[in-house]
This record gives sequence, structure tokens and C-alpha cells, in this order.
Amino acid sequence: MNFTSDNAAGVAPAILDALVAASAGAAAAYGADTFTLRAQALLDEVFERKAASFLVSTGTAANALALGALTPPWSAVFCHEEAHIHDDECGAPELFTGGAKLVGVAGDGGKITPDGLRETLGRFSRGLVKTAQPGALSLSQATEAGTVYSLDEIAALSAIAHGAGLAVHMDGARFANALVELDCSPAQMSWKAGVDALSFGATKNGAMGCEAVIFFNPNQAASFPFLRKRGGHTLSKGRFLGAQMAAYLDGGLWLTLAQRANEAARRMAHGLAGVEQVRLAWPQRINEIFAIVPRPLAAALQAEGAQFHEWRSRAVAASAAPREGEAFLRLVCAFDTSDAEVDRFLAIVGAHCASPEGGRR
Amino acid sequence: MNFTSDNAAGVAPAILDALVAASAGAAAAYGADTFTLRAQALLDEVFERKAASFLVSTGTAANALALGALTPPWSAVFCHEEAHIHDDECGAPELFTGGAKLVGVAGDGGKITPDGLRETLGRFSRGLVKTAQPGALSLSQATEAGTVYSLDEIAALSAIAHGAGLAVHMDGARFANALVELDCSPAQMSWKAGVDALSFGATKNGAMGCEAVIFFNPNQAASFPFLRKRGGHTLSKGRFLGAQMAAYLDGGLWLTLAQRANEAARRMAHGLAGVEQVRLAWPQRINEIFAIVPRPLAAALQAEGAQFHEWRSRAVAASAAPREGEAFLRLVCAFDTSDAEVDRFLAIVGAHCASPEGGRR
Amino acid sequence: MNFTSDNAAGVAPAILDALVAASAGAAAAYGADTFTLRAQALLDEVFERKAASFLVSTGTAANALALGALTPPWSAVFCHEEAHIHDDECGAPELFTGGAKLVGVAGDGGKITPDGLRETLGRFSRGLVKTAQPGALSLSQATEAGTVYSLDEIAALSAIAHGAGLAVHMDGARFANALVELDCSPAQMSWKAGVDALSFGATKNGAMGCEAVIFFNPNQAASFPFLRKRGGHTLSKGRFLGAQMAAYLDGGLWLTLAQRANEAARRMAHGLAGVEQVRLAWPQRINEIFAIVPRPLAAALQAEGAQFHEWRSRAVAASAAPREGEAFLRLVCAFDTSDAEVDRFLAIVGAHCASPEGGRR
Amino acid sequence: MNFTSDNAAGVAPAILDALVAASAGAAAAYGADTFTLRAQALLDEVFERKAASFLVSTGTAANALALGALTPPWSAVFCHEEAHIHDDECGAPELFTGGAKLVGVAGDGGKITPDGLRETLGRFSRGLVKTAQPGALSLSQATEAGTVYSLDEIAALSAIAHGAGLAVHMDGARFANALVELDCSPAQMSWKAGVDALSFGATKNGAMGCEAVIFFNPNQAASFPFLRKRGGHTLSKGRFLGAQMAAYLDGGLWLTLAQRANEAARRMAHGLAGVEQVRLAWPQRINEIFAIVPRPLAAALQAEGAQFHEWRSRAVAASAAPREGEAFLRLVCAFDTSDAEVDRFLAIVGAHCASPEGGRR
Repeated sequence: MNFTSDNAAGVAPAILDALVAASAGAAAAYGADTFTLRAQALLDEVFERKAASFLVSTGTAANALALGALTPPWSAVFCHEEAHIHDDECGAPELFTGGAKLVGVAGDGGKITPDGLRETLGRFSRGLVKTAQPGALSLSQATEAGTVYSLDEIAALSAIAHGAGLAVHMDGARFANALVELDCSPAQMSWKAGVDALSFGATKNGAMGCEAVIFFNPNQAASFPFLRKRGGHTLSKGRFLGAQMAAYLDGGLWLTLAQRANEAARRMAHGLAGVEQVRLAWPQRINEIFAIVPRPLAAALQAEGAQFHEWRSRAVAASAAPREGEAFLRLVCAFDTSDAEVDRFLAIVGAHCASPEGGRR
Repeated sequence: MNFTSDNAAGVAPAILDALVAASAGAAAAYGADTFTLRAQALLDEVFERKAASFLVSTGTAANALALGALTPPWSAVFCHEEAHIHDDECGAPELFTGGAKLVGVAGDGGKITPDGLRETLGRFSRGLVKTAQPGALSLSQATEAGTVYSLDEIAALSAIAHGAGLAVHMDGARFANALVELDCSPAQMSWKAGVDALSFGATKNGAMGCEAVIFFNPNQAASFPFLRKRGGHTLSKGRFLGAQMAAYLDGGLWLTLAQRANEAARRMAHGLAGVEQVRLAWPQRINEIFAIVPRPLAAALQAEGAQFHEWRSRAVAASAAPREGEAFLRLVCAFDTSDAEVDRFLAIVGAHCASPEGGRR
Repeated sequence: MNFTSDNAAGVAPAILDALVAASAGAAAAYGADTFTLRAQALLDEVFERKAASFLVSTGTAANALALGALTPPWSAVFCHEEAHIHDDECGAPELFTGGAKLVGVAGDGGKITPDGLRETLGRFSRGLVKTAQPGALSLSQATEAGTVYSLDEIAALSAIAHGAGLAVHMDGARFANALVELDCSPAQMSWKAGVDALSFGATKNGAMGCEAVIFFNPNQAASFPFLRKRGGHTLSKGRFLGAQMAAYLDGGLWLTLAQRANEAARRMAHGLAGVEQVRLAWPQRINEIFAIVPRPLAAALQAEGAQFHEWRSRAVAASAAPREGEAFLRLVCAFDTSDAEVDRFLAIVGAHCASPEGGRR
Repeated sequence: MNFTSDNAAGVAPAILDALVAASAGAAAAYGADTFTLRAQALLDEVFERKAASFLVSTGTAANALALGALTPPWSAVFCHEEAHIHDDECGAPELFTGGAKLVGVAGDGGKITPDGLRETLGRFSRGLVKTAQPGALSLSQATEAGTVYSLDEIAALSAIAHGAGLAVHMDGARFANALVELDCSPAQMSWKAGVDALSFGATKNGAMGCEAVIFFNPNQAASFPFLRKRGGHTLSKGRFLGAQMAAYLDGGLWLTLAQRANEAARRMAHGLAGVEQVRLAWPQRINEIFAIVPRPLAAALQAEGAQFHEWRSRAVAASAAPREGEAFLRLVCAFDTSDAEVDRFLAIVGAHCASPEGGRR
């Protein structure tokens, strides 16, 4: 019952097999190998576009290097005020951009709204030398709150950004989970909606440590190879990134894995829906659930072996926000979360809430 | 017959097995897992010292992050003028130190001499605000030229460095290969000889992508966790770094792998020793050979399927340096280079040099 | 009638005289001159403390270098969301800290409140490697809104900051103007209230281009000389910074200049107080007034030769905020603003508002 | 008898007058004033070209910001191994380029030779991601050794640089001194010889603290305003930079000042030429002399009140290099060095060397 993170999961068997297979024999170093070439070709195919794509081993690297390629050091990078790039990467975007300024935009459920973006952009004057220059918009799909932008929402935000001369980056650490939820094509959820560069995550969804940075306009990628090398992110045995990504995409494995993770979370959400003492901060969309529960229930769950992180967010509507005596839990399912695990968790909830102690509100 | 690099090799089977095994079940993310803890314990044991050690996935990251932790941005970092950190990392040390200045020291065979170091240090005045402040000495063991510092040489250079207030870093991308050649203990070749922080390589010697940065004085590591996270080098599924490093050290696998690689190179060197038209730039010590051969021989080898890189160095003694019509080859053996491959290479050399064409000088 | 900025003013005659006098003969370069030594001694005397002080030529340099000395690159620097360091320095603090993150705290009238600071600090976890580490609090005295923290307010915020392990920086670009308004001692408004490092401005208050960075605890200044030199802010003919600062402090000139500037603004505020169509966004305290006026009045003023900038701020209480048809003017007086200029401005206002056109609301 | 540096001199009277005059009345802040506009127009006129020029207050800022505008962080910047930007700016170019690598080229007399440049460039491979990418050549005119490149030499080096895709920067801290020595036009010594961006010094030649960065191709200046602001180098009372530069250029004052400084040095050189015990490391060309003298003479000079710095250089031909018992003196004359001072110095030399003690070799 480890619901701490999709990073707590292992590697999908097909990807593990691919790594083992890739190890046989010699291969060109530093990403000039056939595995990487194949992965890049598959990415082009999946995204229906000849793009410039690069593999790295962490999502932080993918995001920060992408932003570094898109914006100069005197830029402002607009993102949700609780975006991973702003709150959880210890300043990696600042490092790789050479000191850009991340500007948080508020928004319920971890989502930036057109009005919020416009209002924030309005505080910056292009060409006025004293202010950071609007450089990029970074959207997280899915968001830190487990919510999902609709295609129209992405398109609307991208249009505002492009209109103001910004590049549009998407942090797709959970791109697959959002995609299967929206049931659209990868192209629709990225470049067709105005995304210029995508951090395409695989690690949280069954890879060992592999993310792609995809520039849909290869011209914007000119500095990326140098930024990546200089960042120590060009793996010498690059074939093992290529092998992961190729296996991840092959036969739609990535979609299957994401569907399974989302389904586990949906099962959990449905199970919790019937429990009076529990409510969700935001509706379940992907493989994450944010549940507000009585503290004694949280303690009971932990006592029974359930693992999860407590959360904290300003993006919860006031009416739903945690109150005194409540715990705010993030529950994350992975590609390998079993129905049994979810049901065991739900059973503990049920038992606790039905008890004289737990039933009291 | 791929002699381009030890990076062209795959992964040692025992390490691959460990990766597969580590994938089962959930594990704490970001390096708080038991695999990583076990790797750190093994490192302490192997180095006979309670150190602060950190795992990353590339040697460039290991070197640059280590230097970033040891020196401020206004530092001078002294290294051989052909050191990997200076010539082959696209400025990674400059990035992670915040803009330190790498100062190359000349020296035959890729090795810094005490006189060379003293002379170079003499150009910098501590406390004089206009000059970069002496910050660190970085030694490569083994060197880019495949040569090896003796323990006394390391100790002498470290003493000069410490006397001038420098920290001592060792780039040990091929630490294992040097170690088995010197036949000493890891402690002797590192902290007992004055090394403060070591980039302990595993990738070139059979891992998939794993290096440790070891601070023998844990106080010097205070900023490392932030530097690493900010650099995008804290892997979410950190267990797979831990599993690699633990398997690498377990039962002395790392020494066995290095011995095999060195032996293959020794076999190659012995085979070439009898060929009049071929000479080595520097005596073979580890798993690399630098051979100067007639250009037609180089072409013949490639025609027969041998792969290697041409080299270029200012660290060759004038008497040995390549002349017109000669090619300067770097031949690298890996843990999995077979005797048969070496012998096939030597056979081509022999056949070519015995021929009327090849025999002409 | 130039009310655009105190930067639009020239140099106070006594400072100009000092520059001319300092030019005679040779002097040691790079700040080792007697003028600089005298300025440092005067700063110690004025602040009643043996401090480490450094002269630079811009306020941006003073702020950014001070923060660079106080905080590592992975820091969060807390400041008002409209602080000059955040909005008006094009990322200078990000550059000189090596990429720290500025975190804006909201607050009416440009002032951070203890609750606001505590709430914001609460989002950062010291030691949690993924979040920027709380590094410094930067207070502006006076603020960008022309308001002034009381001594108790500074002390309360400093105490919170120190309690959370932050250094406290004060941006004192208009330190003198705030000081004469509070009628306290420089020590009271700085280190006695918990300030660790002060950007002590002189330029806006009659100097040509001179600011001091004062570290009340000299230990915190260790890296400053290198940061300054590396930033290109160590002037070769440093005597001219020393001469400015010494003349500025000599005989309390700085207080006289600030009093004059404040008085001019007070005269302006009193004059506007009787005009029904005009209101101030915040009460006048120093040499800046923020007036909300009907657009036609703003146009009339400009037509008659008055110069000023239009402003924009989120720190205005909703009840006072500019409405449709209103202009938000920043009117800044300098040490040399004459009563006549103010009166001329007021006369235009009076005439316009008394007219049939201007009188309509 | 202060021969320590041209930075030890005061300000030329005409420039001081201009500063005083510029102080009257209000002026636009941050360089949008008429004084700055006039200075820029004069620069265009003097250099016979519509350029993009910017004023800053130090030579270090001029050099480092210029290089920052010309090259990305992963660049190699080629300069003489004893160039001011490499040895005397505490890493400012590294800071403002975001961590570029300065690559020293050896050369007698502080001058890079075409062969030296080609050899050094030959070690870098454009497009090879592991090596720093050739970014810029920086030439010092005059050099740190007080020598001067001929127009042909500049043109030859620029041609090599441009051929390799480098931008050409000139550190002209003593541009005026070199110019009057070569007796050519400013255009000839800069853009007509291939220079793209010039740090045009005035401080050492009679200004208070003012240097221009001139981009002869304004397209290359696009990022400069942001780099400068972010570096804290956009002076709020920018008129005082403009006034200095305008007065410096007006009526050719700058040439007059440089001629006087050079003449004083020439007088010194001629005086020393007849002294058997003294030799020059390099022939006198500008306002600096590098004299190798017996240590007792150096002591005698200091005892009599002469001030100078001892020097150290690898750019002295072996035959001329200082030997045991000799001191290597740098003697710098300024625009206001009087003949009397020089003669007094020479008299001490003469008296000492004629004495029984001093005459012994």
C-alpha cells in the first residue's frame, strides 16, 4: 500500500527487458546509438511531427534544460504558483536559464486561467529594461493537483502566451496520464494546442529514469545539446535511455501503463466517494487523489501500513480546504498498483469510519 | 573490434541482474531507499572511512558537482591542461561552480608535476581581489593519457595543494583501472594520499550509468544535496543507482572488471610491441593504449572493421610525437573485450605490416 | 517641475565640491585611498558600530551584491511582491546570488506584515532538498510605495526572519528619507532593529552615483570583495566614491538633504489635501507622493510642463485604488526641489479643478 | 612620483568642469539624458560609424558585459594568457557570460600571434558538443605589456577569428594611448581592422570612471541593455557618464591626454636608455614602461619616494627576463605626469648608478 508517489514504483517489465537486451554488444556512446535513433523516430511518429528530441534521466533536467533553451537569463517564466518547476526543483530552472525569474500565477486546482495569465503578464513591460522580460509560459499537464487542462484551455493559454511573445513549455511528467484521460492524440495535447517544447515524462509511468525533451520547432533546440552536455545530462551509455524510451512507446505500452494507473486511482476515488468523512480536494482525473480525511483516519491508515504524503496547497477552493483536525493526503497510484492494494486501503477506511470512534464527525 | 571507448560497452551481467532484482516492489524515491543506503555502506567499507557519498548518473555531473561543492565562483581550479573537466565537459565545472576558472597545467603523459603545479600556483595571489582565488586541485586517476600517478605523486601534489589552501579533487572515472594497476587499497589511492573528494566512476567499468561522489570529510559536502537537486541529478527512482553501485562493489566485482579490461589492453600492448612500424605514445598502464601508426595501417584496420578514435595531445614527448603520415590512435578496452577481438586486431596489424606495402617505412 | 524621480536631480553642491577637491594629485586605486577610508570611518561613526562597508556606484549593485554575499544560489529571498529588487532590477539579485529565487510577499502599502511573512515562510521547509532554502529577508526602507516601517515593525520582521534562519537585508535606497521621518538614529533603524546588511543609498539623495553596502557583522562580508570585483563594481578611481560618501555624511549633510526632499513632498501633499478630485494612494511619509487624479488633470499638468511617471501597484487598498478615468501618478521630490516648483504644480491643479471642466467629477 | 598606475591619477580639468556643469537642473535618469545622447553621437562621429554604444563606469564591466553579449555560456573566449580579462578581473567575464571558458594564448610581449591563435583554435572543434565552442577573440590594445598591435596584426588576427566563426572584442582600456602611438584613425584601429565590439576606455586617460562599449554592428548589441541593467551597471544619474565621455571626446581632448601620458613615458624610457644597469623588458610604446633594475636601485627609488608596482610576466623573452637580484618594475605615466616628476625619478637612478655601490654590476 505505497501511495507515496509513482516514483516509488519499479520498472515496467517490458522496459526492463529492453534494457537487458540493449546491453548486449558494443554501441556508440553519448546518444549516437541506434536505440536512441529509434526512440527519436518513434517520438516523431507518436507526435506526428519531425521534431528535435533529446533524452535525459530526470524530469527536473528535462524541464530546466528546456526552459534554458527557450529563454535568456533576464526572462520571466510564468507558471502556476505551485508548479513543480517553482516549488520542487530547488531552483533548477534558475540554474539552467542562468538566473531567470519564475513568476507564479495563482489558480484553483493547480491550473492557470486566461485571466490570471493576462493579469500577471500585464505587470511586465517588454523592452523596459528594468523588468524581467516575458520569456516563457510553462504549463503542467497533468498539474501538481492531479487536474488536467482541456485542449481548449491549453490552446487559449498558448495563444495568450504567443501573443505576448512567449514560448510555451509543457511539463509533461504525467503527460501520459493526462492524455488517456482526455482521450486525444499526443499531437493534439501538445503542438496542435500551441506547445513549443514538451518535457515528456516516462519515469513516473514505468521507466527507470528517462524523459524526453521535444522541441516541435527544431530551430528552438539549437542550444540544447550544449546545455545538456554542460549540465552533465548527456549519458555516456546513452543507449539505455534510448532503449527505455523505445520500449515505452512501442506498441503503445505507455498508454496501457497510464490507463492502469489512472484506473487504480479511479477505483480509489469511487471507493472514497461513499465515505461521508472523506472528501476530495479536486475531482480525480489521473493517477493522483487528494483526499481530506479526519486525522484519526490518517493515523489508522498508517498504522495498517498505508504509505502516503501529506499535502499542502493554496489551490484548494475555500469551501473544500482542510480544516482543523483534518489531514490532507496525496494518494498516488502507479502502473503496477493492484486492485487488491486499493481495496485493502478502502477497507481500512471503511472499517475506521464505521467504528464508533471514526464515525463521529 | 570496438575500441572507441569503454563507454561503448554494455553492462556487466551481475549489475544488470541487480537492476532487474531492484525493480520488484515499491521503494522510497529520491535516494532514500535501501539500495542506496547499502551502496553508501559498501563505499564506506571499501574506502575504510565514514564518508559522505552521493550517486549520480554521469561522470561529468560527478566532477562538476564535486567542484561546485568545494569551491566558490571566484575560484581557480587547477588541473592538467588536457583534463577531461577542462576539455571534454563543455564547461560543466564552470556551470556548477558558478563560473570558476579552470587553469590548465602542462605535463607529459597527462600528469601534473609538483614543479608545474607550484609554478602555476605562483601566478595566483590569495587575497588579491583581482585574481581568481586558488580553490581546488583536480587530479585524474587514471589520466586522459592512460597514465597513472603513483601514490607518492598524489601525496606530493596534494601536499602542495593543501599547503596553498586548495581542496583536492580526484576525477576517478577510471579509478578502478588505476587501482588494480597500482595494486594498492582504495583508501591509499584517495584520502590517505590527500584526496578530499573523489568522483568514483563505475559507468566505464561495467555499470549502466552510475558514479559516486565521495567526500572523505563530510563537512565539505554540506552544499552537495542542493547542488545535485538543483542540477537535476537527484534521480527519482534512486534505487537503480544504489543497486548498480552495490552490485559493482559486491564481492570486488569492480576490481575483477577493471583487471579484465587492463589485461586486454596489456595483451594489445604486448602484441604491438613487436611491430616495428608502431609505437606507443605512453607506456600502457590501464585499459587504454595510445598507438602511433602509419596512416595506411589505420585505414587497413578500419577497413577490416576495427573501430577507434584518432587522438590529439600536447602531452606527448617530442621524440614520440606523431609525424607526417602517421595516425594517433586511442584504443580502449572494456571489461568485456575478448582476447579474440584483441588478437583479431593484432592479426590485421601483423598482416599489414608484413606486406610489401605495409612493411615500408 | 520634474517630479519623475529623485534620480533626475543633480548633485548636491557640497558633494560636487568634494569630487573636485578629491581629484587633485595621485591616490591609491581600487578603494585603498584615504577618501574611502574616511568614508568608512564616518559610516562606522554614524552607525555607532565597527562594520564592514563597501562603496559601489548603483543601488542595484548594492542590493544584488549584498544578497549574493548573504545567500547561496539555492536560496529563497523574501521581499515585498513589489520590491525594487524583484520588479525593477532585471534579475540582478538572481545574477549575483547565482540564481536564487525571489519570493514576493503581498502587503498593503508596500509593506510586509509579520503574518504575511510567516505564512510565506511556512511554504518552505529547511533541509527539504527540493525546495529553495530560506535565505534572506529583504526589507525596503522606505518602501516602493513611499511608506515607512516603524522601528517595531522592522524588529518584528527581523525577529521572525532570524528565527527561521534568514539573514536580514535592508534596501535603503531612501534610507535617509525614512530616517528623518522616523526621527531616530541610523543604528536604531538598522542593526538595533535586526538588520544584518544595509544598502545605504546616497545617489537619490544628492550624490552622483554612490551607495554603501554595510555589513554590521563583518563576518558576513567575507565573500563581498570578490563578488564586487567580479561584478565589475570595484571602481579603479575609488577615491571618487569615497569622496562622495564622506561629503554626504559630513556634518549631517545627508539628513539635511533628505529633510528638504521630504518637506517638498509634504508641501505637495498638504496642497493636494484640499483638492476634492485628488486623493493619495498612501499617506505621504517621505519624498514621494502617489496621487490618484482625474485623467484630464494629469493631461493638463503635463501640458503645463509637469513631469512625472504613471504608477501601477497591487498594494493599494481596494477602496483607494484608481478607477476608470483616473491616473495614478508618482510624484517624487528631490533635495533640490524648490517650493516654487511645488507651488506651481499646485497652482495648475487648483486652476484645473476649479474650472467648469475640471470641477466635474 | 606615483608611477603605480594611470588609475592613480585624478580627473582631467575639462572633464571635471563638464561634470560640474552637467549637475545643474533635472535630467532624465538611466541614460536617457541629453549628455549621453551627445556622447553617443560623438562616438559615432569619432569612429565614423553608426554604432550601438553604452556607457559604464568600469573597464571590467565593459569587457565582461561585451563578452556576455557576444558569446553564450558554453563558449571559449581566446585572449592572451596574461590578458587583463583573464588575470585581473576575478572572473568577471565568467560571471557575465554565464560561465564561458577563457583560453589563454601565449605570446611574447603580451601579443597573440596568428600562429599561436591558429594552434589554439585548432584544439577546439565547432559542433563537437563536449568542447567549449569557439566564441570570441579578445585583443588588448594596448596590451598588458604596454606593447601595441599594428593595424595589420589586428586585421590578421581578426581574419583568423572571423574565419573560425568568432566575434572579435578589443579591450581598449588604453585605446587612446595605442592610437596616438600608431597615429591612425579610431576606425582603422577598430572596425576597419575587424573589431566587432570595443571596450573604449576613458578612466585611465583622465575620466573619473567611464568606459564605452561600442558594438560596430548594432545587431550584436541586442542583449546588452539587459545584461547591463542586470549587472547593476545602468547608472541612475546616467548624465554623469554622458558628460564625462562627451568632454573626453570634445575637441580631441582624449588624444591630447594620451599624447601627454605617452610622452612622459617616452621621456622616462629615453632617460633610462643610457643607464647600463637598467633594461626594458619590451620597447616603450605607450604610457607604460617595464624596467628591469638591480634590486638596490629599486629600493633606493622607493626610499626617495617613487611609487610603482613590481611586475611578473611570462611574456618576456628569455634573454631579457629578470635575473636573480633584479626587480621588474612597471612604471606608468598618466595624462598629468609632469616632466619634473620623470626627471626627479631619472636623477635618482642616475645618482644611484653612478655611485660606487650602484655602479657595480
